[in-house]
Amino acid sequence: MTSPAFSHAEYTARQDAVRRSMEKAGIDTLVVTEPANMCYLTGYDGWSFYTPQCLLVALTLDEPVLIVRGMDANAGKVTTHLRHENILGFPDHYVQQPDRHPMDWVAEEMGRRSINGGTVGLEMDSYYFSPMAYEHIRKGLPNARFANGNNVVNWVRSIKSPAELAYMREAAKIIAETMRVGIEAVQPGVRQCDAVARIYDTAIRGVDGIGGDYPAIVPMLPSGIGASTPHLTWSDAPFKSGEATILELAGVRRRYHCPMARTVSLGKPPQKLADASATICDGIAAALDAARPGATCEEVEAAWRRELAKSGFEKESRIGYSVGLNYPPDWGEHTMSLRPGDTTVIQPNMTFHMIPGLMLDDCGIEISECFLITEKGAECFYDFPRPMVVKD
Amino acid sequence: MTSPAFSHAEYTARQDAVRRSMEKAGIDTLVVTEPANMCYLTGYDGWSFYTPQCLLVALTLDEPVLIVRGMDANAGKVTTHLRHENILGFPDHYVQQPDRHPMDWVAEEMGRRSINGGTVGLEMDSYYFSPMAYEHIRKGLPNARFANGNNVVNWVRSIKSPAELAYMREAAKIIAETMRVGIEAVQPGVRQCDAVARIYDTAIRGVDGIGGDYPAIVPMLPSGIGASTPHLTWSDAPFKSGEATILELAGVRRRYHCPMARTVSLGKPPQKLADASATICDGIAAALDAARPGATCEEVEAAWRRELAKSGFEKESRIGYSVGLNYPPDWGEHTMSLRPGDTTVIQPNMTFHMIPGLMLDDCGIEISECFLITEKGAECFYDFPRPMVVKD
Repeated sequence: MTSPAFSHAEYTARQDAVRRSMEKAGIDTLVVTEPANMCYLTGYDGWSFYTPQCLLVALTLDEPVLIVRGMDANAGKVTTHLRHENILGFPDHYVQQPDRHPMDWVAEEMGRRSINGGTVGLEMDSYYFSPMAYEHIRKGLPNARFANGNNVVNWVRSIKSPAELAYMREAAKIIAETMRVGIEAVQPGVRQCDAVARIYDTAIRGVDGIGGDYPAIVPMLPSGIGASTPHLTWSDAPFKSGEATILELAGVRRRYHCPMARTVSLGKPPQKLADASATICDGIAAALDAARPGATCEEVEAAWRRELAKSGFEKESRIGYSVGLNYPPDWGEHTMSLRPGDTTVIQPNMTFHMIPGLMLDDCGIEISECFLITEKGAECFYDFPRPMVVKD
Repeated sequence: MTSPAFSHAEYTARQDAVRRSMEKAGIDTLVVTEPANMCYLTGYDGWSFYTPQCLLVALTLDEPVLIVRGMDANAGKVTTHLRHENILGFPDHYVQQPDRHPMDWVAEEMGRRSINGGTVGLEMDSYYFSPMAYEHIRKGLPNARFANGNNVVNWVRSIKSPAELAYMREAAKIIAETMRVGIEAVQPGVRQCDAVARIYDTAIRGVDGIGGDYPAIVPMLPSGIGASTPHLTWSDAPFKSGEATILELAGVRRRYHCPMARTVSLGKPPQKLADASATICDGIAAALDAARPGATCEEVEAAWRRELAKSGFEKESRIGYSVGLNYPPDWGEHTMSLRPGDTTVIQPNMTFHMIPGLMLDDCGIEISECFLITEKGAECFYDFPRPMVVKD
């Protein structure tokens, strides 16, 4: 049995904050479909997001209404503080049918609760809200106006509470041990899958009596030429001498992530990889130094880019993003990015994963830091050597 | 480095089959966004589906066009047989922006390839195709008509080739050993996360030199009252005497799944759980006997329902679905379901996961079989005792 991860009062405060954001955005009812947002607002936690589900947050209701597949309603009772009248299961005949959709049932329930008018916010770019779901809920609410409610909850999530940070610090302990084991496991002749088996074993077992949760992204382990691209998972091929392997992993506690990337070279790396490691380490140090309350996201990236310019390497993509509570397929929060043009002002209790990888033609390297913004600046969640690990 | 899982010829045959389905449906170009469908048609395999991506299959093009985020283009080169001119990366500034979307770039590329007119099929209920993606691609293709291309590829996937079945048989070996370890690990006082760590270690390490891949659904381990609902994941609480735990797991090989559910009772179970176990075992046997070429999906379910009627238990939800290649969050293929009203005629080389769980008020039980349809009838992928395991 899994009880809610936070107190009733903390969930209520989060709901209040979202209602204030909704008022500013002119939204009367927000249909929350992102699993991380549903969990953030109520504690709801189950692998049920492969069927449509949602949380209705309305200015006129004192508590959100959770709507899940019938068989998952008990998961709502077990994992949230919601009153049982606000936990509903839709009938199973709505599941995966060409002629009907669970959102038809959701729209009908919104009518029963008199929240089927006014302006309804929809999370337009959320993973588990499909165009078909969108069309069905629009059709089911003929008296509503619609607004894009994308990231309304995500922005509230961007500032972490002390209780959330406590989970992230536990996740940091787990990732430090997991990365140590992962680096140790990468040896010539060892199969990639055997290294990943040890990584999972450590990450889920956890440390110091703190059990681990599943990561929103599986262990990334691109190796050799596969490391010229960042998102390959493992195979059962053995690691080879003369090749570098990227490990991008996360420790997870109660769905809160603390990610880390490191790179291991089996044998002396080519000079360009050694140079890339030095550039990334210099760039991370400069960017961390720039990450202070009052600075903008693009200013942090600019500090990295100044170091990069000295090196001759090029990198187009962003170097980091807001991180915390999440479900597959992403541990990023989709709000702030550390990149040119993002003028978000950094505030205390924001948390980031900075991961300036350099993908070269036939190899690649990633080194990252997960950090908290404090009044004084960036505070890294773990103290783990950054430079590329070279095994002779 | 991960080479494609199948021969070039097999991918070409799959593409041809999908083009034939498109012709029947009156679709000129299909925008494939479901990661399993993209992998099925080309081999593309990476954890990159957290940013928008797609595969364009057009009647006028001899090969599909893969469009992914810039940094993931090399993953296309490593994992597919596609010609490099048909592997494209969109610029990183399209990622997670409020004012533009990668689908804008996709629409422009469709113009460059002269496939921006005619009837464009969209996978309207796919997980990683959001309403915002939908609106942007519609806006970007003013001369196109749109059709619902949902499940066009999924239906082609429902009949497995010999090479696919070989991977599923390897996955079956992995799940048999993983379930053995999982059942062994469930003991009073053992933390749930420690049992899951052993499950992951076994499933990823694999057996007989065959390495395991990650499952599309993480290990489900609802325990005690948590087992009154099927989709809770683990915590770090210990298993308790007097409680039953459901294990729903999968062996996975090159993204092909072989799932299995079993239930363990620590101590003598309440009579209703023992009765439920017997009912499910009788029902599975009857339904497997009915699962033959020529029978319909609903007839298979009816055989189960006749056994259920004798028992006094009730069950609303479907008892199974088509299974195979997949990515999170689901290993089901969203085509056939074993339930009333599904009149799909069963054919040789279809593969199913039959999982008639019974969720009671304060506990629950699941027992499942993964099976192949042969000319002679259902052939189970593994031979693993079904009844509830009772540990004294």
